[in-house]
This record gives sequence, structure tokens and C-alpha cells, in this order.
Amino acid sequence: MPEERPPVAIIMGSQSDWETMKNAADTLEILGVDYEARIISAHRTPDRLVAFAKGARDEGFKVIIAGAGGAAHLPGMTAAMTPLPVFGVPVQSRALSGQDSLLSIVQMPAGIPVGTLAIGKAGAVNAALLAAAVLALYDDDLAERLDEWRERQTDAVAEYPLDDTP
Amino acid sequence: MPEERPPVAIIMGSQSDWETMKNAADTLEILGVDYEARIISAHRTPDRLVAFAKGARDEGFKVIIAGAGGAAHLPGMTAAMTPLPVFGVPVQSRALSGQDSLLSIVQMPAGIPVGTLAIGKAGAVNAALLAAAVLALYDDDLAERLDEWRERQTDAVAEYPLDDTP
Amino acid sequence: MPEERPPVAIIMGSQSDWETMKNAADTLEILGVDYEARIISAHRTPDRLVAFAKGARDEGFKVIIAGAGGAAHLPGMTAAMTPLPVFGVPVQSRALSGQDSLLSIVQMPAGIPVGTLAIGKAGAVNAALLAAAVLALYDDDLAERLDEWRERQTDAVAEYPLDDTP
Amino acid sequence: MPEERPPVAIIMGSQSDWETMKNAADTLEILGVDYEARIISAHRTPDRLVAFAKGARDEGFKVIIAGAGGAAHLPGMTAAMTPLPVFGVPVQSRALSGQDSLLSIVQMPAGIPVGTLAIGKAGAVNAALLAAAVLALYDDDLAERLDEWRERQTDAVAEYPLDDTP
Amino acid sequence: MPEERPPVAIIMGSQSDWETMKNAADTLEILGVDYEARIISAHRTPDRLVAFAKGARDEGFKVIIAGAGGAAHLPGMTAAMTPLPVFGVPVQSRALSGQDSLLSIVQMPAGIPVGTLAIGKAGAVNAALLAAAVLALYDDDLAERLDEWRERQTDAVAEYPLDDTP
Amino acid sequence: MPEERPPVAIIMGSQSDWETMKNAADTLEILGVDYEARIISAHRTPDRLVAFAKGARDEGFKVIIAGAGGAAHLPGMTAAMTPLPVFGVPVQSRALSGQDSLLSIVQMPAGIPVGTLAIGKAGAVNAALLAAAVLALYDDDLAERLDEWRERQTDAVAEYPLDDTP
Amino acid sequence: MPEERPPVAIIMGSQSDWETMKNAADTLEILGVDYEARIISAHRTPDRLVAFAKGARDEGFKVIIAGAGGAAHLPGMTAAMTPLPVFGVPVQSRALSGQDSLLSIVQMPAGIPVGTLAIGKAGAVNAALLAAAVLALYDDDLAERLDEWRERQTDAVAEYPLDDTP
Amino acid sequence: MPEERPPVAIIMGSQSDWETMKNAADTLEILGVDYEARIISAHRTPDRLVAFAKGARDEGFKVIIAGAGGAAHLPGMTAAMTPLPVFGVPVQSRALSGQDSLLSIVQMPAGIPVGTLAIGKAGAVNAALLAAAVLALYDDDLAERLDEWRERQTDAVAEYPLDDTP
Repeated sequence: MPEERPPVAIIMGSQSDWETMKNAADTLEILGVDYEARIISAHRTPDRLVAFAKGARDEGFKVIIAGAGGAAHLPGMTAAMTPLPVFGVPVQSRALSGQDSLLSIVQMPAGIPVGTLAIGKAGAVNAALLAAAVLALYDDDLAERLDEWRERQTDAVAEYPLDDTP
Repeated sequence: MPEERPPVAIIMGSQSDWETMKNAADTLEILGVDYEARIISAHRTPDRLVAFAKGARDEGFKVIIAGAGGAAHLPGMTAAMTPLPVFGVPVQSRALSGQDSLLSIVQMPAGIPVGTLAIGKAGAVNAALLAAAVLALYDDDLAERLDEWRERQTDAVAEYPLDDTP
Repeated sequence: MPEERPPVAIIMGSQSDWETMKNAADTLEILGVDYEARIISAHRTPDRLVAFAKGARDEGFKVIIAGAGGAAHLPGMTAAMTPLPVFGVPVQSRALSGQDSLLSIVQMPAGIPVGTLAIGKAGAVNAALLAAAVLALYDDDLAERLDEWRERQTDAVAEYPLDDTP
Repeated sequence: MPEERPPVAIIMGSQSDWETMKNAADTLEILGVDYEARIISAHRTPDRLVAFAKGARDEGFKVIIAGAGGAAHLPGMTAAMTPLPVFGVPVQSRALSGQDSLLSIVQMPAGIPVGTLAIGKAGAVNAALLAAAVLALYDDDLAERLDEWRERQTDAVAEYPLDDTP
Repeated sequence: MPEERPPVAIIMGSQSDWETMKNAADTLEILGVDYEARIISAHRTPDRLVAFAKGARDEGFKVIIAGAGGAAHLPGMTAAMTPLPVFGVPVQSRALSGQDSLLSIVQMPAGIPVGTLAIGKAGAVNAALLAAAVLALYDDDLAERLDEWRERQTDAVAEYPLDDTP
Repeated sequence: MPEERPPVAIIMGSQSDWETMKNAADTLEILGVDYEARIISAHRTPDRLVAFAKGARDEGFKVIIAGAGGAAHLPGMTAAMTPLPVFGVPVQSRALSGQDSLLSIVQMPAGIPVGTLAIGKAGAVNAALLAAAVLALYDDDLAERLDEWRERQTDAVAEYPLDDTP
Repeated sequence: MPEERPPVAIIMGSQSDWETMKNAADTLEILGVDYEARIISAHRTPDRLVAFAKGARDEGFKVIIAGAGGAAHLPGMTAAMTPLPVFGVPVQSRALSGQDSLLSIVQMPAGIPVGTLAIGKAGAVNAALLAAAVLALYDDDLAERLDEWRERQTDAVAEYPLDDTP
Repeated sequence: MPEERPPVAIIMGSQSDWETMKNAADTLEILGVDYEARIISAHRTPDRLVAFAKGARDEGFKVIIAGAGGAAHLPGMTAAMTPLPVFGVPVQSRALSGQDSLLSIVQMPAGIPVGTLAIGKAGAVNAALLAAAVLALYDDDLAERLDEWRERQTDAVAEYPLDDTP
């Protein structure tokens, strides 16, 4: 039964975080990695958080991507209640541009890790890539798809800036 | 039974936070306010956190003082699971001097408040004073003791710097 | 006579702060908590500040919510002249996005506490919720309304991001 | 009677600020400018603050130097209650190294100015020099002493670093 | 001849700073204080800077207001070459919102003071008010105008936020 | 042949980083995870970096832990040349306490992820725990050891601060 | 053959950096200094980076201008693989306004220097001017053109702000 | 006559900066590059600054290394008065750890460049290396010595951390 869950869970603190976190979802789709996206507010739905985090491994999830902004407690509290790898995405906050989100996620005390990505959309894309890299360690097909994605990314970098080709 | 609990709970993320938080305890003692000090790590003892926070009101606590450092999730997560007023003390962290603690505690999203005090010992003292001010709203004796404490504090401010009395 | 005053005073440094602080007022209204909103500039109307702060308890106020931006002295100076609990809201400033407001409010020295909330609107909402939590300690009806408000808040969190329901 | 007061008042929030502020006093002494140093805590002795600030001009003071740390409200609140020029010295605070002090003093809203100097001892020295420069506008003897002081300062700068003279 | 110069010089690093600095000019006009506004770039017109700063006292200026942004050297370098009081206005910069301007102006070493005001327009207004306060020390008419200006400022603060008058 | 390599590589920019990074090594040892620690300076030994990063997967490494300080380019450049998951540890720098290290590591552009941990020793410990969590996804024995480690960690949190047991 | 290359290479991490870096190109053109502009992503095209940096001197380049944003590794990694002078331009990033770019470029460890310019367009202009200053050390014609450019710059600074000419 | 001057000038704001700047001198000595070290305070000896900066090219200097702390105006003001390349070293300041020094030096406006190095000793070493790299463009012997220095630097990086050689 747990096997029905996809390998990646994308959780976020509120609907408004989805604008950022859907970049993680889109990236996973391109890479052919199944995911489930859920809203779990550490502050407004703590029971949902506890249920999700404690059950995540048994449900079959392998990696958790958690995005949140401001006093961003979702990634760290999830990591506190699951042995699965948790990757945190600091959502860009209004007043402090995500500096609060970043520090709230990355400065975890020794004992409970959260692998933190960049503030905002780049961080969401990269959380997906990192999740894929983890899964690819034991999935040769995914490893190949990831290699191809990176090659395409490399090939897509033009040699000269657009209005300055010699 | 809940009545057996003192009105103030002082919780902190680790033993090392006690150096800061005992200033809250000492202040409450001077003011004649009972308290209970406990170590509750949001990250290392999440079950203890849930049990404490969910049961705090029924156990008879009135106000919670929570101190933590770094990615300080204890005050906010406690506030997420209790309707009691929670006052947060950012413990001074090693690398970032408590800037991470401060932002992790104060930048709570709308819906779950944490009244945040200054970084470090001053914040711990003030959390106790604020807790006392709240309790004094309905406790005339405490209100009087608090008034006297503040008067003594005012009286203790010398007129001239020590080596410059005219 | 003092009894005529509502339990909560919302004070702010200028008319422009009202855009932020009305979120506190709206939240108190939803919770059925009476309040009075006044403009008191610590810098431009210091006499008004002294009169208000010194008289606040006798007038019957229980909790003071004070919002200000930049070198935000209103919350701390109010706290210096009243034994009532003061909750500070750092208004988002133009150049420094409220970082100056936050530090000016939260970094109070030991002896005079200001319970500080987040920068901007979230902070204003939360100041109201914290004031209500304080008043609810001795007002069972309000406690119940606050519990219901929080339950509604929890229930309002969707399970899945809007354009990603499985 | 007001004439009995010296032209410069040096005020500070606490005894511990004197370590910094005595650098202002020492500098004034070297320049032959009379001063009076007093402890006035905006937070712990607000009445003393009001009495001092409102009476400063009538007592004969010309310039006020105010030093404070953390949520440093003393310079700005003094400026709010006197038309005299107020120069603020951000005292280096423990956790945030005076960044809080600086922003709390310098970021005053339009209408009430505080001329702010550097964090710490350099700021205290410079507050004295700035006060002297103001008084020297109408005191030719002082202007001459100040010129001489600056010449001596210029002459005291060696041409080559001590262990590298060619 | 020097007497022909007005008492206040407003200098700024570039035309673009005028948007900020004209707030100083407007304020001086309201207070009836003469001024002269000039563009002096410490970096692009260093000779102009030297000529101005060294000659400012002899030309009859009393107070200098200097505004600049980014690596803002104009206020400090002017202060290095004149005994007159210099008040610095950190112009809000594009990338760092004036944090660079503020630190470049306020963190002067012991020996050469710059009285620094807030970032941006508020700082420009306040530089003018501070200059006026300095001049008013020996100009009773100006002192009276300044008092009246401040009274009007105080009177202009409404009691209640606009859409919340009881 | 690649199989001879241990699953985790711990790389660091200089010998001085070892004081921090040995905390990762110690943690892996406790968990029974083999590792190899190497000094690879992105700036001083770029060829070594290229050789290591490009060959890491073929050599049999599964996860790379990279620690560096200041303009910390090692984690990101390694990630640019390997598909393996890279976890970055910002070493606390002298002047900026690791704020430069943190931003240099975490703010990677979309396309090349580095899962970043906290500044300093906590980050090194957590990089090891995160690497173990990744490896444990497909190693039930390690998963069990990790679970036990976390249980011991939880059990080691005392209920009451040391000098305040009731 | 190497002689065919122009003296200045302008490299940047992505097409989007060109908006900033073309200011360097435009400035070089005005000064009559040949350049070649290329996109080299340290993260997405590491091979291109290695090939470029290692071959730059032999190809005849004299000075390298490198612009990048966020975790900006391009300038430092280029400097690690060439003995040519490298000047870095921190491109203004979205969330952190170039503070991450600046620290990632300027905080290089002892041994590998990057001469860093201001964040954004001013930095790009100045990188070109600095490159020209270096080349002008051994090119009298260029030195003359640079002198003239600076004279014109000085002459272009108006004496009075536009709407305030006396 | 100008030819008597060495190619590199190392200037600094005060004797206390020499502790940092002698690292530049030592590095130049190792590379066999002549230099002259002088104390020039932009604020306390502005005439010396003008004389030095205006005369530097004619005296035969090729590159200027300028170190200063706090509101560090020396590098930028020197660059304003010479066409020679100026490299700035932000000296670590007491309160703000060189963040003020860095911003005061690096954030120069378009038109006057200062190539800025890292805060503190690493920056001083690197300023010397960058000066050498500039001079090496037209001095093959120096280029060779610089190449050898870098090779030795590379060779000096151990493969394994000291107490962890396998």
C-alpha cells in the first residue's frame, strides 16, 4: 500500500508558496519523477504536519521537498519527524526578501539536517534536481535521464550574448 | 489537577540555552511568580513538544516563555499548538550572533503569534517581565510587586556616571 | 470611568501606519474584542505619548498594541511608562524594509519589555491575536471565540495547491 | 541662572555606556569646552528624560550628545523634546555589535533630527568634535583651539608605517 | 565678501541626488534660512571638492549639508577639509537601498565627524532642521520660527487614523 | 575498481577547514558509513577539483560533502561536474562569520543544486546525517542504525535544565 | 595567432547578465579598446570555463572582466586558472539584490585575487575603466584617451542642480 | 627622476592598518616587486592624499594598493585623482567586521573604479598578487616568478587533512 505513494513529496506552507514550488513539480515532471504536492502549514495545521512527517517513510516516500517563507519551520519540523532526506526551499518573503526564510531553514542545529537550496524559484528547481540525483543513485534509467537533462542544459548555453555575436 | 502547575512555563531547546533562560527564571522568582523550566527540543524531541504544547492550557499554565537559537522553531511551533500567549527569546547563536534566532522567532506568519523579546539575556529578563505584566492584569498583588520592582529599577539609575560625579 | 475604555489600545506613529495597523483592528473586530485606535507620534507628539502611556492603566486599557517604522520608539517608550503589556509591530520602512523598525522595537534593554511581532501586516494581525490570547486567559467566552477562530483557520488550509489537486 | 550650565550635555542610557561616552568628555576637555555628563535612561527613567529634554534649552545647554545602545531611544526622544541640536552615539551592543543601536538612532522620521556619529568610541570622540564645531561658529577662541587640535592631529600622522620606514 | 554667501551649503554628488536633497532646500526655505545648492562629486570633481571645502568657512558658510549615495565619500571628505559642521544625508542607492551610503557616511574614524541623518528624503529634511537648530543657537528669530514650525508639526498630527475616528 | 571507494567523499578547501569537517567524519564513523576525506581547493588546485568531480561517480562515490569558507566555490563547482548529490557546509569565516560562505554555497542558480547545511560544526554533523539518510534509502541496516542514533539523540535530551530539576 | 584576440575578454554567466555587462562593452568601445564578449557559465558549462581560463593568456587576452550573480563563481574560478588579472562584476540578483553576488566574488581566499567592482551597471562600467587603466600603463595612446574621457566626465558635472541654478 | 619610484605604492589610512597591509608588502617582496609603503589618511591628511594621488603617475608608480577601514575613503579618493589602477583592501573594522570598509570601497559610482579585494589579510595578499599580475603583463620575468609562485601554492596543498591521511 505505501508503495502507491510517489517517491517525492512536495510540501509547502501555503497556497501562495505554490507559485514558487510548482517549479519543483515542473522539473520533476520533465525528469519523469513522480511526486505529490501538498499544503502543510507547520503553524496552522500542526496535526497534518505530524501525521505527514511521521508517516512519510511508511507511505513510501523517499525524499521530501519542503518550501516555506518567513519564520519557515516546515522543513525543519518535518526533518525532526522523519528519517527521510528533507530538502528545504526558502520562499522569497515580502519584507526581508527571503533572508528570514533562508536562515530559518538552513541554520538547523546538529542532529536534524535540512539540505537547503537557494531562495525562490531557482531553489525549487534545484530541490527537484537534488531529489532526482538522490533517487538516481539507485535508478539507472533516471540517472540517464538526469545526465541527458544536464547535457541539454549545457548545450543550451549560447556562446555569445544575443546582440553581440561577432 | 491542572491547577497544580505554575502559571509560567519556561521551555528551551537545550541545556546550553539555560545560561540565557535562567535570567527569566531569576526574574520571575524576584517577582514572586511561580514557574516550571523544561527542556523541549522542537527538533530532537518533537513528541515532547506536541505533548507539552497541546496540554499546556489544560495543565494550568497561563503563559509560555520559549527560548531557542539558530533555526529556532520552538516558540513558533509551541504557539501553533496552544492558545496561550507565547513569548519567544532568541538565544545568541555562535556564527550569526542570534540574527538567525531572532528572524526564526519573530517573522511568524499571520495567524500564529509569538511575542518576541531581545536577543540573549535581556530578552530572557524581559520575557519574564512581560509574562508578569500579563498575569498582573488580574492579580493585584503581583501588579503591586511589579510596580515596586519597576520603581526600584528607576531608583537604581544613578544620576551621574561613576567616575564623573560633579 | 476608566472602565469606559476598551481593553485594547492600538497606537501608531502616523496616519501612514494605519494601512498596516488596521489589520490589527480588523482582527480584533472579528474576535469581538473592543479597541481604540489612536495616532501617537513618539517624536512629533511626545506630550501625547506621555499622557497616554502614563494614564493607560487607569483609563482601563489592558493591552497596548503599538506600531511604528524606522527608528521606531513608540512601543518601547510606551512600555517605559506603563506596566501594561505592550506588543510592538514593526512597520515596513521604505529604505530598509522594516529591518530598522524591527531592531528598534525588539532590542529593548533588560527591564522594559516589548513583545514584538513580525514586520508588516502579519505582525499587525498577530499583535491582535496575542492581545486576544492575553485577554482570553480570564475571559472564557473570548477563549472560545479564539479557539473557534483558530479552528476555522486550520480548516481553511487546503490539502493541495489550487492547480494541482490529484 | 540657566547660564550656570555648561554648553554641552553628555547623556547616556546607563553607567555601562560611560566607557564609550567618556571619550566624548575627554575630547571636550582637551578642547576646553565645558560639559556635564548625566545618566538618563529613556526606558528606566522616562521622567528624568522628559524633565531634562524639556528644560535643556532654558538651563543654558547649547548642544546635547546622547549615547545609547540596542533599541537606542534616548537620542531621538531627547530630540523630540528640545529644539537644541542633538548628536547621537550608537554604543556597541553585545549581540549585534551596534547595528541595532545605529539604526535606532539614525533612522529618525522627517521632523525630528539626530545627527548620528559612528558606532562606539570613534563616534563619541566625533560627537564632541561636532559639538565643538557648532559652538566654534560663534566662539573665535574655540574655533582657534579646534583648528590647532586638527593641525596637531594632521601632524601626528606618520609618513611611513612604523616598521617600514625606508 | 564672504558675508555674501548664505549660511547653509547643500552639496550633493550628482544631479540625481537632487530629488532627495531638494527636500533639505525646501525645508530651509520654509524656515527662512538661506542656502546655496551645488553639485560637487568627490569622485568626478575632486578639485571642486577641495576648493569648496577648504574655502567654505572663509566664504561665510556656517553649516554644510552633504548628500551622496553608494560609496558616499562627499560628506566625509568635505569634513576632512573644513572645520564647519557637516551633516551627511545617505541617498538611497539602487542595489543596497542606501545601506552602503549610510555606512560610508556614518562610520567616520575618530577625528573627523559627520553628523549623519536617515537614508533618503527624511534624512534630507532632517539635515535642514538640524542645520537650522545649529544656526538658531545664536539667532533668536530663527529659533522662534523653528519653535513655531515644530508646534505646527505637532498640531498636524491627527488624534485618530483617518477612517477610524470614533 | 570504482567499488573500492567508500560511499561518501568529504572534501574541503584547506587544512584549516578540517577542524569543522572532521565533525562530518566523526558522525559518519558513528553511523558506520565509510568515507574518504580529501583537501581540494577550488582556487588553488582547480585541476584536482576537475579530476575529482568528473571522476567521482565512476570511482564509486555516492554522496559528496563539501566544506569551504569565504567565497566558497568548492561545493558549487563540484556539483557542476558530477551528477552525484552534493551537500555543502559553509565554514565559519573570520570577518563575516560564515555569511559569505553561506551565500556563496546556497545561492546556486537553477540547474546545479547544492543542498546546504548550517554554518560551522552543526552543518558538518548534519551533512553527514543527510548523506546517511540518502544512503539509508537503499540500505536497511544503515536505516536501522540511523533510527537508533536518532532515538539515542532524543533520549539524551534531559527533561529539566541541569541546575533546575524540581 | 594568439595575437588575433582582443586585449579584453568580457565573460558572463548567462545571457541575462548581458544587460549589465554590455555597459562594460560600451565603455570599452568608447575608449577604443577591443574586446570579446562570451557567455561562460561556471556551473552549466564548466568545460568551457576550464578551456577558456586555461587558454586565455596564450590566446592573447590581457585582462578578463567576469560578471555573474547569486553564488557567483565565474570570476573566482577563472582567476584560479589564469595568471591574467581578473575583474569581477557582481550582477544584481533578484532576492538579495547582489549581496550574494558581491560576497561570492570579493571574499576570495589569499592566493587567487579578483578585483571586484560595484554591484550592477556601475560595476560593469568601472570594470571596463579599470581594464583600460591597466592596458594604458603600456599604451600611451590609450592613456591619453582615458585621460580625455575622465576630463570630459569631470566637465560634464554641472555646477548646480538642474532646477536650482541661482 | 620619476623612474626612481618603485612600481607599486601601498598606502593605508593609519599605522594600525599596517598589520593588515604588511601582508601585501610581504607578498610583493616574495615576488620580487618593489614597493613603497606610506600612511596617507584621507580624513586626517587630505593634502597629503591630494599631493600623492595627483603626482603618483608622474612619480613613476604603476599600481596603487590602498587599504582602509570603516568609512574607508582612501581607495576611492585616490582613484578619483589618478589614472593609475587602484586596488582597495577593506581593513576589518571593530564594530562591523569590515562590512562598512567593504561597502565604502567597492560601491564606487560609475566613472571611478576601485578593484576591491577581500576584507582583511587575504585581501592584502591578493592586492599584491593582482598588482603583480598587472605588472607581469609586460614583464616576462615577473610573469615567470608569478607562475612559479602559483605552482608552489598549488603544490603546497596537501591531499589529505593532517590527521586523516589514509
